[in-house]
Amino acid sequence: MSEIDAVALTADLIRCPSVTPNEGGALVLLDALLADAGFECTRVDREGISNLFARWGAKGHDRTFGFNGHTDVVPVGDQAAWTTDPFGAEVKDGIMFGRGATDMKSGVAAFAAAAIDFVRDTPPDGSIILTITGDEEADAIYGTTALLDYMDKTDEKMSVCLVGEPTCPNDMGDMMKIGRRGSLTAWFTFKGKQGHSAYPHRAKNPLPAMAALMHRLASHTLDEGNAHFDASTLAVVTMDTGNPATNVIPAECRATVNIRFNDIHSGESLTSWLHAQLTGVSEETGIDIDVNIKVSGESFITPPGPLSDLVANAVQAETGRTPELSTSGGTSDARFVKNHCPVVEFGLVGKTMHQVDENVPVVQIQQLKAIYGRILRDYFA
Amino acid sequence: MSEIDAVALTADLIRCPSVTPNEGGALVLLDALLADAGFECTRVDREGISNLFARWGAKGHDRTFGFNGHTDVVPVGDQAAWTTDPFGAEVKDGIMFGRGATDMKSGVAAFAAAAIDFVRDTPPDGSIILTITGDEEADAIYGTTALLDYMDKTDEKMSVCLVGEPTCPNDMGDMMKIGRRGSLTAWFTFKGKQGHSAYPHRAKNPLPAMAALMHRLASHTLDEGNAHFDASTLAVVTMDTGNPATNVIPAECRATVNIRFNDIHSGESLTSWLHAQLTGVSEETGIDIDVNIKVSGESFITPPGPLSDLVANAVQAETGRTPELSTSGGTSDARFVKNHCPVVEFGLVGKTMHQVDENVPVVQIQQLKAIYGRILRDYFA
Repeated sequence: MSEIDAVALTADLIRCPSVTPNEGGALVLLDALLADAGFECTRVDREGISNLFARWGAKGHDRTFGFNGHTDVVPVGDQAAWTTDPFGAEVKDGIMFGRGATDMKSGVAAFAAAAIDFVRDTPPDGSIILTITGDEEADAIYGTTALLDYMDKTDEKMSVCLVGEPTCPNDMGDMMKIGRRGSLTAWFTFKGKQGHSAYPHRAKNPLPAMAALMHRLASHTLDEGNAHFDASTLAVVTMDTGNPATNVIPAECRATVNIRFNDIHSGESLTSWLHAQLTGVSEETGIDIDVNIKVSGESFITPPGPLSDLVANAVQAETGRTPELSTSGGTSDARFVKNHCPVVEFGLVGKTMHQVDENVPVVQIQQLKAIYGRILRDYFA
Repeated sequence: MSEIDAVALTADLIRCPSVTPNEGGALVLLDALLADAGFECTRVDREGISNLFARWGAKGHDRTFGFNGHTDVVPVGDQAAWTTDPFGAEVKDGIMFGRGATDMKSGVAAFAAAAIDFVRDTPPDGSIILTITGDEEADAIYGTTALLDYMDKTDEKMSVCLVGEPTCPNDMGDMMKIGRRGSLTAWFTFKGKQGHSAYPHRAKNPLPAMAALMHRLASHTLDEGNAHFDASTLAVVTMDTGNPATNVIPAECRATVNIRFNDIHSGESLTSWLHAQLTGVSEETGIDIDVNIKVSGESFITPPGPLSDLVANAVQAETGRTPELSTSGGTSDARFVKNHCPVVEFGLVGKTMHQVDENVPVVQIQQLKAIYGRILRDYFA
């Protein structure tokens, strides 16, 4: 049998208009392809979200290699600004264009192609599981978490897991991820008492309290980072009042802060810290301050070891580059997988992800398939 | 001849729907009344704004008593919340209701009635000038300034001027104004560079700069006040960004500050101070900060002396109260008149001004006419 063409498969997936949370035909296509290659496939759909679980080999094998990825894509954005059909998968000068070209239909296609080739050519003593979600780009509530929940309930288990998100900032193979910082968002509301600007003593202006608290938070150094993590960061992302009258002191204003934190902190420790800062400013100013905090992911790390070595060696062998072991960047579904088994992330160059004219060099898809194939061979060797 | 009924005149004026900047018939009514009493009346209309200049007696007399007031009123607001017709001048239990009842058709009516009675009964050796504007509640660009401009060009001159705005906070006669604080508004724009919340080092977040500058301004004590003035105040009135995405650092945000300042400062000194604060924060943060500053009025004072004594003595004689000589509160057209001649302000209790069911006790209108009449008699005695 001939090898599976990862480039053609990427193109087929791009042509499925799977704008989150629409399935768009992408998971149906993968289901058929994997089932045909001997994978046991199960659709794990929840609340209108489609997900695919696929296993080759015995259930519960203690040597089970896992892969996680997603077929949903972000919206097209300004379609008029695209120079190609966002769902056309057109190739120009060796570059394939389309929404999801890098994030991450190419990654899913490369792994599926590598895995099908591998089990056909050298059936391993072990199992391979693919967890492919249709809800990574949106709320991620019924996506990878639903798949992991399904696996818990059915005693499915991955020994290790590779997430195929784009991880390379500049060149193929220059970076892999062994963890991620956590993310916390805090929405503050400052409540005072409306009044006339000429009589501030009769009002309670909430704006100085907002300025004081945001100044205090933005001026604070959370940490300096450590061996595996960059420094934690705090970004004030918005401050709003909506008062058009210069002679009126408003009754209320709002601010939002986003924190990306390393393993020196936790969602709980940061929540305590924010409450302490808030209380301090509230007592100084006499302004009531409410906060609503959401921790969308704790920080996590799979310390350098066998799994990161496995991936790094394959990258090195196929690209000549030694990938940096990084924990930088935003969140990914690895934040859910890390509760199930050791997880690392490696994928191609993500420069154009989410942008107009998202694109991927065809050769990178081929390289990625080769890397994933080598990882599988080395893992089961 | 019978006395002019200030209460009936107030009611007639309330029935003119002179919502700023509409003339509404109010100045036409006054023009006819004053002309009939021997006043030389001239309409000074500019850019759709109506104003009335009226003089009894010789032009350029070195003993000319001036009065300044306005017949325009603020909008009705929530008409459904009124318990009476806002332009009905209904009297219930001795209280007259209507938009402009206190601010300040009663004041205009009381002075016009007092002046007409006075010149008829005891024609003085001197002159009386009324400057009545239809643009005090809006931009005040073509109102009292237009009248003063007309007077400059035609060699009309007031020796002193009484502004008839409501000045008493609680009881008839408890306060008069001998000056006002100035008012300055500064609109700040903070310009950075948009980016992803997870990569703050690649963006330039303008929000910490806004928080730092607003915290700095709001924490500063401008002064402690002095013999004639309350402390200057600074109110941050709005801070806005409008960024709904918690994973995005915005490129720009805006803040507005309103300063009410006494004679320790000037619009110029405060402008310099604001620029210095802005430059400091801009240098600390690397964020471009623009500011647009408008000084809508400098502070001014007519120091206690013959004019304030004249008014205070009349108030004392008619009400039994010694008015506090105050410089508190917002701006009034006295800020323009002070460039022409010494000016003080006295009027009735302003508690319901600009509110739903604005109203005035009928007896206060009668008292105010009596006070204004006594001021005229004493001035020309």
